[in-house]
Amino acid sequence: MTQADHVAVVDDEHGVGQQDRSRRSLATPQRLRSFFAPRSIALVGASEGSGWARFILDSLSTSGFGGDLRLVHPVRPQAFGRPTVPSLRALDEPVDLAFVLAPTRAVEGVLEDAAAAGIHNVVVLASGYGDGGGEEGRERERRLVERAVELDLTLLGPNCLGFVNAAAGVAPFGLHIVPPLRRGGLGVVLQSGALTSNVLAFARAHGIGISLLTSMGNEAVITAADVIEHLIDDDETRVIGLFLESVRDPQRFLALAERALQVGKPIVALKVGRSPAGQLAALAHTGAVAGDDAVVAAAFRQFGVTRVDSLEELLITAGLLGSGTVPTGRRMGVVTASGGACDIIADRSADEGVEIPEFSESTGAQLRELLPSFAAARNPLDVTGVILADTATASANLGGTALNAVAADPKLDFVLNLISVPVAAPPDPAVPERRMADIAATVARSPIPIVNFSATCSDLSEYGADLLDRHGLHVVGGIEFGLTAVGHAIRWNEMRQDRGARPAAAPAPAPRVAPDDLPDGAWSEARARDLLVAAGVPVVPAELVQDPDEAVAAAERLGHPVAVKVCSASITHKSDIGGVALGLGEPDAVRAAAESVLAAGRAVTDDVEGALVSPMRTGGTELFVGVTVDPSFGPVLAVGLGGVFIEVLRDVSLRVLPVDPAEVVRMLGELRGAPVLAGARGTVPVDLQAVAEVVTKVAECARSLGPALQVLEINPLWVDGSHVEALDVLVVTGPS
Amino acid sequence: MTQADHVAVVDDEHGVGQQDRSRRSLATPQRLRSFFAPRSIALVGASEGSGWARFILDSLSTSGFGGDLRLVHPVRPQAFGRPTVPSLRALDEPVDLAFVLAPTRAVEGVLEDAAAAGIHNVVVLASGYGDGGGEEGRERERRLVERAVELDLTLLGPNCLGFVNAAAGVAPFGLHIVPPLRRGGLGVVLQSGALTSNVLAFARAHGIGISLLTSMGNEAVITAADVIEHLIDDDETRVIGLFLESVRDPQRFLALAERALQVGKPIVALKVGRSPAGQLAALAHTGAVAGDDAVVAAAFRQFGVTRVDSLEELLITAGLLGSGTVPTGRRMGVVTASGGACDIIADRSADEGVEIPEFSESTGAQLRELLPSFAAARNPLDVTGVILADTATASANLGGTALNAVAADPKLDFVLNLISVPVAAPPDPAVPERRMADIAATVARSPIPIVNFSATCSDLSEYGADLLDRHGLHVVGGIEFGLTAVGHAIRWNEMRQDRGARPAAAPAPAPRVAPDDLPDGAWSEARARDLLVAAGVPVVPAELVQDPDEAVAAAERLGHPVAVKVCSASITHKSDIGGVALGLGEPDAVRAAAESVLAAGRAVTDDVEGALVSPMRTGGTELFVGVTVDPSFGPVLAVGLGGVFIEVLRDVSLRVLPVDPAEVVRMLGELRGAPVLAGARGTVPVDLQAVAEVVTKVAECARSLGPALQVLEINPLWVDGSHVEALDVLVVTGPS
Repeated sequence: MTQADHVAVVDDEHGVGQQDRSRRSLATPQRLRSFFAPRSIALVGASEGSGWARFILDSLSTSGFGGDLRLVHPVRPQAFGRPTVPSLRALDEPVDLAFVLAPTRAVEGVLEDAAAAGIHNVVVLASGYGDGGGEEGRERERRLVERAVELDLTLLGPNCLGFVNAAAGVAPFGLHIVPPLRRGGLGVVLQSGALTSNVLAFARAHGIGISLLTSMGNEAVITAADVIEHLIDDDETRVIGLFLESVRDPQRFLALAERALQVGKPIVALKVGRSPAGQLAALAHTGAVAGDDAVVAAAFRQFGVTRVDSLEELLITAGLLGSGTVPTGRRMGVVTASGGACDIIADRSADEGVEIPEFSESTGAQLRELLPSFAAARNPLDVTGVILADTATASANLGGTALNAVAADPKLDFVLNLISVPVAAPPDPAVPERRMADIAATVARSPIPIVNFSATCSDLSEYGADLLDRHGLHVVGGIEFGLTAVGHAIRWNEMRQDRGARPAAAPAPAPRVAPDDLPDGAWSEARARDLLVAAGVPVVPAELVQDPDEAVAAAERLGHPVAVKVCSASITHKSDIGGVALGLGEPDAVRAAAESVLAAGRAVTDDVEGALVSPMRTGGTELFVGVTVDPSFGPVLAVGLGGVFIEVLRDVSLRVLPVDPAEVVRMLGELRGAPVLAGARGTVPVDLQAVAEVVTKVAECARSLGPALQVLEINPLWVDGSHVEALDVLVVTGPS
Repeated sequence: MTQADHVAVVDDEHGVGQQDRSRRSLATPQRLRSFFAPRSIALVGASEGSGWARFILDSLSTSGFGGDLRLVHPVRPQAFGRPTVPSLRALDEPVDLAFVLAPTRAVEGVLEDAAAAGIHNVVVLASGYGDGGGEEGRERERRLVERAVELDLTLLGPNCLGFVNAAAGVAPFGLHIVPPLRRGGLGVVLQSGALTSNVLAFARAHGIGISLLTSMGNEAVITAADVIEHLIDDDETRVIGLFLESVRDPQRFLALAERALQVGKPIVALKVGRSPAGQLAALAHTGAVAGDDAVVAAAFRQFGVTRVDSLEELLITAGLLGSGTVPTGRRMGVVTASGGACDIIADRSADEGVEIPEFSESTGAQLRELLPSFAAARNPLDVTGVILADTATASANLGGTALNAVAADPKLDFVLNLISVPVAAPPDPAVPERRMADIAATVARSPIPIVNFSATCSDLSEYGADLLDRHGLHVVGGIEFGLTAVGHAIRWNEMRQDRGARPAAAPAPAPRVAPDDLPDGAWSEARARDLLVAAGVPVVPAELVQDPDEAVAAAERLGHPVAVKVCSASITHKSDIGGVALGLGEPDAVRAAAESVLAAGRAVTDDVEGALVSPMRTGGTELFVGVTVDPSFGPVLAVGLGGVFIEVLRDVSLRVLPVDPAEVVRMLGELRGAPVLAGARGTVPVDLQAVAEVVTKVAECARSLGPALQVLEINPLWVDGSHVEALDVLVVTGPS
């Protein structure tokens, strides 16, 4: 059972509503294949007064659409110099797609016309639904979905600008597309219409071609997840880029992410809402519920989704991942004609954990033969400005020969080749053609990937883009974003290899260890301890006592010094009411403490079960382990170190459940306080494997509580070498 | 006395060598003014075979150089279709500048020719000096400087591509400059030649004009600091951009930074060597000594130098700072036609500490009148795609009217206006002209700065750049780098205001509190304590005792519990040898401990002064205060919290000395553990002012040790509210 199967199980457990099932049947991969490749289109509400209509006609023309285009307008007999029909019903045969520009109040009628005309695919532009129309708008959107289901209409929108299918040469799209439209391997899903122009323009300027781009609108019928699923199956698409304001169905999204990882199709996502301000901004536009962004970040990392922070990072990363020459290891050779660029590259590589090892002996020797005497044959390599100036001499191809030598170095995993793409044809256009042909030949011959970089994030001119195209070369847009992209690519590859190497462990759904009658609210600690013990979690020994004498006797059995804590389901913050006494070494002290904590407890509640007596644990390291429930992603595991790490630095590592011990080891490694686990403060190093197994059991225990789970927290989980024990535990359950 | 004066004093104290003084007299601001604005130029070694010569001729032509150009070649009578003279001596009158392309071995002869011809300014291109020629090369460079001084030659280089003076229209520069050369307020100093093309191309593509750009080469005579000084004085230059591989004369650099801050001319610096790999790379090209990068970072922050990590960030930040519309506060209004862009802007603003407050009542009301019903009148504002599509209706200028309303909001400090600059003229070119004129009018009318942004980091087309020029508008290149730039600008402004507001405190040079005969090596703790006491630093009471009886008596006087520590100049790690005992509550315990620590000390050295008995301090907060000496920047103060913060997280804040208490308060605020100081862990909040005054005294005490200072460290400095005491101190002095 893979992670994806797990998620699917959870999905089924949670159940999918009937309307949602009907909705989904309209947006299956099969239906979307034909939806996004119409050979005939009707534009409903086509008039010269509408900028949208003009944009759509322009976009179709830019995309080279050669199919049948019909204009529909209820009143005007002509638009844009063509005849119109008054309604979809007046068409002689159904079109593959109707693009509806009609105002909100007229949309439902148009949908009925479409169905009557035998049309099954519609794009709806109108706003005023879930996107800002208040409760009335939301009701309008529910009604829209209902009608779509009844009329068997696959619907993109509402509040949507359409899509651009560059692969199929059809772009029913309501904003300006600066030509030419570039066809390629990047599939894009945008939960924002207005960014589309920016995405297309930037991609084009960086020589990145598009397969399919969709503006999602309100996702009333076709959702972002549906399109992602379509793109995973789509042969034209090699990499998927997302702009997300919200992850509407996280379980499905993560299952798709897992599948994309398994088939080797990277997903790169700009998910906004990293900050409270960003969440507010996204809420204003979508009405979606914002979960905890740290959970989003953890889930993306866990499922191999590359998260980025800017449109540039999104596209440059996707461009590299889709280019076919992707770094597969961390050891990088660098070839430049600029010492300054070498410095910048070295710093940025360090940021990304990319190594620039010394060249091997033989590469160094080869380079010393090639280079001018004052140049150093070292990695990162500056072949010096000689190649720029002395075009007439043998140095002219110094860059090329040096690149050849470096690419053959057995100590390297890939090469960063810094090149400069000319803006316009020079007096002798054969010179750049020869240079690019040389690079292309070297790339083809090279045993390791060669990634070509430009120095800065700059647009390719049309001449430059065509020059690269002629030689089948991709150039990554600048050192800054380029090395970010290289770092992403390396981590994605490592993730993929790791997933492939991990046995498809098949843990059964978490066995139910709790009794059937779960309380509403906090459990007493004694009851919570029983739950953990049943789940196989090591818990510090304890005896529940009713009076001071029993406490003294228990302390004798358990061994001094002991801790005494009041035990009650009604008291969650025991310390605050004087309900905890620690380090009790003498029977008298135990007696006094028991008396005091029981009295303190009884002063605030009748519901005192007694006092728990436990042996003290000293030395070692204290961890924090908690499972809470995210409103979108479900149960989330948090692991951290105790003390200032959790209290001041909020240094925790998160994962959505389930996890296995290997994942927990990774979580511990991500902590800023990780050196403490390795013994940095003079304590015994922590047995990470032992801790990870206990944490995994804690997580499974929490998951076994099902939808009743609210909180399961162990604080501290005490570790001394491989001795692991829960010292204090809190469980809260209730209606979900 | 300002910070700058301080630095100047330090500079004088350290002394400047005679050769350096002579060298500097060649590179005074007065001489550089004429150096960089030659009206006649001789190109020495001009032949068609040299790519450099071709590039220089092209660059001069691109810059519109209309002065006298003479070609010099020892053998060929003609070059580039013009007559040559065989030597500078053959010129009929001296030129303002000689650009020497001659090979390394011929350079000295050419310099003699130049001097003989009455020429005082030369650029030297040849390599093989300090730049990679080994010891021989370094000797060659020393000789070059010597000759320059003897011959009274102001020399740029060697290993240098020249300069571009766009303001004066003269670019004797040895690489291709893509025309047109854009004139403007950015002065650039590059310790790298090959990056010049990238810098010029990127600046041009973002509508950023240059005043003067220099490629520094080896800085044998003219140094980067000399050019920075020139640019601070230069009226054409409004902002200074640097690419630095090393800061060669940190004291002078910081004094110039302080001066730039005082006159309001921002310095933005891409200083490489952030990582060990980057330092190695820079070393390979420059041979310069790399100091600790954390010190560079601290010094830059302290003196108002904006540090950036990429060429894009350098230029976009400098472009904003030089544009004249610079944010002066943190409250930002946002006007866009894209909800997605609003989300991205909100997240990036949060990263930069920029606030997006709600609009004031009246702005909201105004906007509700303007906007379509489904759009929300909130900040960040999405005026929706209506403005893109409905060009025919009143909505056409919705962006403009909304911008007007937002700019008038009294709750805002500045406005981010997201615009899209067309690539080419539309069918009706009056439309974009009108739109830009509207924006320009709003900007001119606005009571607060309006910063125009594009969505992504993209090149302006020539049409787009001209369109903006015609309306006097600057557009910041993309949300990602643009908000980084806004953050930098705000911090720079705050720094400037803060500096202006701080009284020019005039602390005397640190009074010498130590005896004249400073030991070579570590001091005993007793002696180190005396030093601190003399400097006015509060130190925990202690008595130096010689035997257990004295220890018991001392403990009686000081009050139990006490700590007993062996005292010896030869033992720096007392705990490691069993030389420390803590928390001694009873006389017997004190006696035994004194016996034990004295014995432990005497087992490792004869040099035991006794044992120090001190009262224990519990509760409170422990800080770390250390002064060490950076090889380039001199004494550096480090302040941090104790425990895991220093040991595991290396959470320290650094400053070069001197500092005042206000600066120390800022240091404490920068710590990740700062919440602890505010009482996050249940302790009494720390009196930051009291701590800052003690830390300042510690720093002055360290500085008073002069060049003998190696280390002065207090660990811990114990703080309980406003009670501050040094509990343990280490002083190391020796030959500098």
